[in-house]
Amino acid sequence: VTPPEALRAEHPLDRADLRARVGKALDAFVSARRPTLETVSDELVPVADALADFLAEGGKRVRPAFCYWGWRGAGGADCDEIIAAAAALELLHACALIHDDVIDGSDRRRGRASVHRRFAALHRMAGWQGDPDAFGEAAAILLGDLCLTWSDQLLADSGLPSDALRRGSAGYDVMRTELMAGQYLDLLGQVSGEASVDRALRVARFKTAKYTVERPLLLGAALAGAPEQVRATYTEYGVPLGEAFQLRDDVLGVFGDPGTTGKPAGDDLREGKRTVLVATAIDRAGVTDEARIRRWLGDPGLDGPELAALRGIIVDTGALDEVEGMVAELTARALDALVGAPIEPEAGEVLAELAIAATARLR
Amino acid sequence: VTPPEALRAEHPLDRADLRARVGKALDAFVSARRPTLETVSDELVPVADALADFLAEGGKRVRPAFCYWGWRGAGGADCDEIIAAAAALELLHACALIHDDVIDGSDRRRGRASVHRRFAALHRMAGWQGDPDAFGEAAAILLGDLCLTWSDQLLADSGLPSDALRRGSAGYDVMRTELMAGQYLDLLGQVSGEASVDRALRVARFKTAKYTVERPLLLGAALAGAPEQVRATYTEYGVPLGEAFQLRDDVLGVFGDPGTTGKPAGDDLREGKRTVLVATAIDRAGVTDEARIRRWLGDPGLDGPELAALRGIIVDTGALDEVEGMVAELTARALDALVGAPIEPEAGEVLAELAIAATARLR
Repeated sequence: VTPPEALRAEHPLDRADLRARVGKALDAFVSARRPTLETVSDELVPVADALADFLAEGGKRVRPAFCYWGWRGAGGADCDEIIAAAAALELLHACALIHDDVIDGSDRRRGRASVHRRFAALHRMAGWQGDPDAFGEAAAILLGDLCLTWSDQLLADSGLPSDALRRGSAGYDVMRTELMAGQYLDLLGQVSGEASVDRALRVARFKTAKYTVERPLLLGAALAGAPEQVRATYTEYGVPLGEAFQLRDDVLGVFGDPGTTGKPAGDDLREGKRTVLVATAIDRAGVTDEARIRRWLGDPGLDGPELAALRGIIVDTGALDEVEGMVAELTARALDALVGAPIEPEAGEVLAELAIAATARLR
Repeated sequence: VTPPEALRAEHPLDRADLRARVGKALDAFVSARRPTLETVSDELVPVADALADFLAEGGKRVRPAFCYWGWRGAGGADCDEIIAAAAALELLHACALIHDDVIDGSDRRRGRASVHRRFAALHRMAGWQGDPDAFGEAAAILLGDLCLTWSDQLLADSGLPSDALRRGSAGYDVMRTELMAGQYLDLLGQVSGEASVDRALRVARFKTAKYTVERPLLLGAALAGAPEQVRATYTEYGVPLGEAFQLRDDVLGVFGDPGTTGKPAGDDLREGKRTVLVATAIDRAGVTDEARIRRWLGDPGLDGPELAALRGIIVDTGALDEVEGMVAELTARALDALVGAPIEPEAGEVLAELAIAATARLR
């Protein structure tokens, strides 16, 4: 048994060497599929490369971590099969990010060019005909589709017994459906101009909270054949924590350091995202400030003094403090759900650490 | 036993009441998933409606038919479970078409507005903010993603035993990977301006032949646990027939009646598709005609006298006759593969009928 001090020395996402093992599982899976692509044509090599790079640049592997600890918390033993199954969620997420970047017209992701920008650059370098941006978007749509089908396949090929996979299947279906539905709702929020706090919270619940925390935990639980009480704990912990994640992310999208977020500062404001933070600021702003928010929000050229002024309004209205208060309260609710819960102690400890690490103020 | 005359009176795609049963299976599946969408928000109703309409408008259900007869040919009994599994291929195809229309900027599909145009119209009617076309494309990307995840789920929920599903899984993976790869290759062909007959045939093989005929047959075979000889027959029949399908489609894309194809006449030429038909015309054309082909191909405004002239070149170079000859030869090869093959007689009969019906000249 590792002593508690040693455990606390590493990031909770690295417990059980998780990030490295998920990375390896993804790498092995993509490598095994390269021949299928290359049999079609060696012109598919850039597609396989783009996907391998995207997955290697990696992100934090948050969803695989929740799936893994959902399994462990329900008494499942550590094994490579659950790592492979959990890694499938990274492929689903890759699809969501690649398609999201096309939809939002985002140029950067994880500190690099987004996938559609990468393929637009390939088009330019090769001197091909037609619009490089249209080519980039088309290639990114197809690459996202490939990630989505491979996600399903990695889960099916994880090596877990077929009764476990059958148990996991229904929840995985709901998870993917909620993801697409939440994204559509997010899109509607941007175009309808309706920026109520209620709507923003609903988007946060379906697009992030359930998708990032609750559903991965429940997938791990279903694969392990967990009883109802364990699943109820995961929901009571997962939904508030996931909402706290999204609110933390909203704050980072406005005030975050580009070196940490991998995206230019203020991108969420330029994209006109109707986050809970922005909706709260609109609710609390006077007539003049509300007009300024509405004028600047969604302006692709927003930068410099206007960006600073918009941030100032979000602070001065008290919206930032209110959202920080919500993050703290939601995180506390998530931690409460773990107290006395019928899950394995090590998993309970990691889930508590994850809640604290992922919602902590960065400034 | 139904007498042969009665069988020949109906379209082979309607044998075993297939189109109606596949339509019902899709309808039941989407209806069962509406509550999941509507729990997220009643604003998801238009998404469910768009998908239900798209699937109901339906197309010919060619892929489910090959999957079903692949199963029957291998000795599988008629049952609702194989219909549901076969119907999953329609959801995969819906994703391919919806995303393809975004990529190609196609306004029409199956005689109606394409999905991205439908959502752009919804945006305009609602008077929402921002670019209606961008909204339409974003919604179509998400709806296609939903179709892709639901395809996998319909197969998993078909009710077939889990050992059958496990056997089918690897082939379904390859099928989806080849589809995405073939589409990327098609895209490259359009931008690289390389219009060789070889490349066009390769695209036809992966994007259509395997995806439309061979892989669905092999999925049915795998689900039924068919031996190697049956699978070999399906490949020998399926690949040439699928190529013949694509070549027939290429001809229809240039010369087809919009009332039958559901797309404006000459759409393939305006989109600049490097089909085998076009590549053959370029190969055979003299300097002047080649320059005219290259000038007009991919011009979105191509219509009237120029469209007629381009069609004229394709006829006068002999490209149309050459492609028609290829269709006839490939169809004959497919039919030969059925002679003495170790498959159930009724399935063999239907496969022969399908080959003839789907490749016949329409004019």
